[in-house]
Amino acid sequence: MSTLSEVNPEDWDVWRDYHRAGRELTHALDRRLQADAGISHPEYLLLLTLWTAPERRLRTGELADELAWEKSRVSHQVTRMVARGLVERSACDTDARGVWVALTPDGRRTVIRATRDHTDAIRAWFLDVLTDDELRAFQTASQRIRERLADDSALPREMEARADGAA
Amino acid sequence: MSTLSEVNPEDWDVWRDYHRAGRELTHALDRRLQADAGISHPEYLLLLTLWTAPERRLRTGELADELAWEKSRVSHQVTRMVARGLVERSACDTDARGVWVALTPDGRRTVIRATRDHTDAIRAWFLDVLTDDELRAFQTASQRIRERLADDSALPREMEARADGAA
Repeated sequence: MSTLSEVNPEDWDVWRDYHRAGRELTHALDRRLQADAGISHPEYLLLLTLWTAPERRLRTGELADELAWEKSRVSHQVTRMVARGLVERSACDTDARGVWVALTPDGRRTVIRATRDHTDAIRAWFLDVLTDDELRAFQTASQRIRERLADDSALPREMEARADGAA
Repeated sequence: MSTLSEVNPEDWDVWRDYHRAGRELTHALDRRLQADAGISHPEYLLLLTLWTAPERRLRTGELADELAWEKSRVSHQVTRMVARGLVERSACDTDARGVWVALTPDGRRTVIRATRDHTDAIRAWFLDVLTDDELRAFQTASQRIRERLADDSALPREMEARADGAA
């Protein structure tokens, strides 16, 4: 085991617990959303992001930024959700290349219905489980992780790797 | 916005920051593993789980438990990784229905190579970003979240919902 990693075992355990808790929580929320509202957690996040946007609509690129997804993933997800009547696309007046993605009335009903149960689950499985000190620690540390990723993001390494591998 | 949720905005922000940090971290780790070792983060977790198992092999069900994945997801992932020569299946002597999944030499080399860079990333983006107090808070709170999920898991609700919806 020690040949695998130069991180000490205690620190590795913290990472493992953090990462597993996050995965298991996301998985449990996903199963519950599927059972209650018939949508996956990614679909819920997309609907919620539109719901909280001005005029309940965003351009594909803005959706990708808000969700921290690749633009191609947003496009595919939107196409599937258009087919199910949850969102709709329309041309953007001010940007010839832009397309708005907006909630349909059915998408709006779905996100409202899903949110009631989803917030109960987040309260039961996350907020009620943490002490006030832990909530504060989670928030400040999570913000710092996001800042660090934004500063340092994998892009330079990725570009190196691509430059080596391709072209 | 307030019509959407009965969780107070401060608590909701903690959840949002925690969840986004987790997603962005997983996404950054995935991109880096793809660039450095040509495998996704789920593929890495599967290889690592086998690497740390006795004799570097596990049954499909054990892999599913360790990874907190559905058994069908494990099966599909293993099939793809067998095709790429990273793992192999073999019959299990002591259990007629069981199948071992084991690392191939190539899978072993891949997980060792990937781990060097992956641990650097976890150190830079997670361990070095958190104070000792925050690390402790993350660990104890993450363990409590996992216990709560295990006790309370979505199963009873899901079964109710299925009983309503189907059959």
